[in-house]
Amino acid sequence: MIAQVMKVDKILEQSLLFDFYGELLTEHQKEIYERFIAEDLSLGEIAEEAGISRQGVHDLIKRCNQTLRGYEEKLHLLEKFLAVKDKVERIEQLLDQYNEEGAEELVRNIRKISGEIIEEL
Amino acid sequence: MIAQVMKVDKILEQSLLFDFYGELLTEHQKEIYERFIAEDLSLGEIAEEAGISRQGVHDLIKRCNQTLRGYEEKLHLLEKFLAVKDKVERIEQLLDQYNEEGAEELVRNIRKISGEIIEEL
Repeated sequence: MIAQVMKVDKILEQSLLFDFYGELLTEHQKEIYERFIAEDLSLGEIAEEAGISRQGVHDLIKRCNQTLRGYEEKLHLLEKFLAVKDKVERIEQLLDQYNEEGAEELVRNIRKISGEIIEEL
Repeated sequence: MIAQVMKVDKILEQSLLFDFYGELLTEHQKEIYERFIAEDLSLGEIAEEAGISRQGVHDLIKRCNQTLRGYEEKLHLLEKFLAVKDKVERIEQLLDQYNEEGAEELVRNIRKISGEIIEEL
């Protein structure tokens, strides 16, 4: 069970890092890594589709993981995104708790913009 | 005058791109480029301090400009930052216009968090 949870966490981390830094991989890396992340295919299936060896896919994914983590260590985009997301959620909680009559439009507008902030990132 | 304004704009752009992507340059590039941007030294002065040729400094800065712009084309961090900054300013304008008694704490709290969002980026 713990191994299962850790596997999900790792895939989630890989998937988030790919969202943030995927564009910095080569086209070939992007194509293979995306299949691994998004389509949840096995190494053997990806290897067969891409016409390379299973070991080649394994090495490429390992190298991509290192590259993506290296970018996060330098730019911290995922860390910053989670911090901003947390702050936007705090704004939304404050608005939830504020039920004054007459403030509906203010609350609605700020809520709309807060949501847009998250979409930008 | 127009040339002057364009020069300022270019330096501002270089400085912002360096803020976002400077960590992705090599240590050597970072050191030289930072002197050029932050200390506003001439190529000759930087060359003398670093013990390389003026042409070497020129080429390094040109290459860094290309590298930094290349990252922006792929990751759009500057573009996203400006979009989020714009939205935070819109939230602050809405709060400025909302003067209901009893809402002071809400307004103060949201303003504080909005400011923190900008600092995160």
